[in-house]
Amino acid sequence: MTKEKLFEQIKLKKSFLCVGLDIDKDLIPKSLKRDSNIIFTFCKNIVDATAPFCVALKPNIAFFEAYGIEGWESLNKLVTYVKKSYPEIFLIADAKRADIGNTSIRYAKAFFEYFNFDAITLSPYMGFDSVEPFLTYKNKYGILLGLTSNAGAKDFQLKSFGEVKVYEHIIKTSLKWKNSKQLMYVVGATKSNYMNKIRKLIPDHFLLIPGIGAQGGSLRNVAKEGMNKKCGILVNSSRSIIYSSKNRDYATKAEQVARKMQFEMNELLIENQVI
Amino acid sequence: MTKEKLFEQIKLKKSFLCVGLDIDKDLIPKSLKRDSNIIFTFCKNIVDATAPFCVALKPNIAFFEAYGIEGWESLNKLVTYVKKSYPEIFLIADAKRADIGNTSIRYAKAFFEYFNFDAITLSPYMGFDSVEPFLTYKNKYGILLGLTSNAGAKDFQLKSFGEVKVYEHIIKTSLKWKNSKQLMYVVGATKSNYMNKIRKLIPDHFLLIPGIGAQGGSLRNVAKEGMNKKCGILVNSSRSIIYSSKNRDYATKAEQVARKMQFEMNELLIENQVI
Repeated sequence: MTKEKLFEQIKLKKSFLCVGLDIDKDLIPKSLKRDSNIIFTFCKNIVDATAPFCVALKPNIAFFEAYGIEGWESLNKLVTYVKKSYPEIFLIADAKRADIGNTSIRYAKAFFEYFNFDAITLSPYMGFDSVEPFLTYKNKYGILLGLTSNAGAKDFQLKSFGEVKVYEHIIKTSLKWKNSKQLMYVVGATKSNYMNKIRKLIPDHFLLIPGIGAQGGSLRNVAKEGMNKKCGILVNSSRSIIYSSKNRDYATKAEQVARKMQFEMNELLIENQVI
Repeated sequence: MTKEKLFEQIKLKKSFLCVGLDIDKDLIPKSLKRDSNIIFTFCKNIVDATAPFCVALKPNIAFFEAYGIEGWESLNKLVTYVKKSYPEIFLIADAKRADIGNTSIRYAKAFFEYFNFDAITLSPYMGFDSVEPFLTYKNKYGILLGLTSNAGAKDFQLKSFGEVKVYEHIIKTSLKWKNSKQLMYVVGATKSNYMNKIRKLIPDHFLLIPGIGAQGGSLRNVAKEGMNKKCGILVNSSRSIIYSSKNRDYATKAEQVARKMQFEMNELLIENQVI
């Protein structure tokens, strides 16, 4: 899926919402406990409920991996279902992978060939040859960790190299990598005071912004600081949508929360003259 | 498995060899092509052949992931087999994981609970709260990327922050994290000229050293620069052992290469007065 098509969907749905699928059986409503495909059923119902209001879906791979084979089988079903039923949705593997070249090639195969994801989140620490194998796939994207929303970001990302911080150096350097137009960047919503600086470095790239809701970031701030003329941001919300109810009405409640976010996003898209 | 037990095994086997399992069906001998459990069968035969000469095994998770459900099922069988047949072998998931706290908890569950690995490789970029969840497991280890063997290491790891390089800063900072005694570090063999500096920062921690063989590092150099009184290094070799023959004799050939490496390692352990 191209960036252009993603932007069309943003204009069509008047939304830049990404629904994060952090699947925790302990939080899935009891009404599903006897379902033999509990993970898939829960995800499918959330996807069906929120698809009209979001342009992207982001399964958090760790949460599937924690359930072993069952988790991988559920992920497989989910990806197949989304690609068939909602081919217009941008599907992101939140996997934070990257390794030496011959190994990154395998991760790319896993997420772009075995699973037909449109994008994958990547860790930058090992440099160009750990990321470039993901950027050789046409119309697929590597979403590089820029500045993350967690407390540990201060350990390295926010340290200064002379006048630039580590995360700035990483963003700048990544622009020199082969096929860097196929990069997007993770920038935490809790770091919206840095968004201006980041936009100067990468005015045109898409930013994937987690940290709204449970982690405390403000939607209005990130839209104001992060949006460009083609929207350029995907704002992720996971727990505050998918676990908005612990009862039978979980899908209806998830729909309501997603609809409310889409409503706010529509206003922000108008305010910022994107639509 | 404790570090002390690992050191006992090093003294017993007179080896600090880690056999890396980078499973590529295209390189597995044709004689196995009709085996319905080809990945597991190949791994099992390599493990049986090399177990007397190695103290650690390191499945490279990307190579399993690339085969989807089949890969995960094979990995599951492999881990179960190794833990049952060779409980004295230190089992490392080469997975380069780490994410925000609630997500790292899931990766830790996957590799330390669902799969009973002894250690997992971790990427440091997201800081303390992305790594600490792995260090809460008793007698399990997080192996943090320090200085890697690939060309991309120059992009960030070798950049200078004032007087210290990024990788040095990362190693220093990680020592302040909770349960940092349960850390080990990845240091590429191709970077043996930096080993002295690293040993000053972390005299007692174990180093996992890839890059011998196919990637060009020298065993003698890394032993000279990296060993401490309790050995303190695990040297990994993958392709040069497991694909030393493309024919039916692959296990015998792997055994020969592993035996030869163990022979050299025995000499180096004596020279460096570890045994």
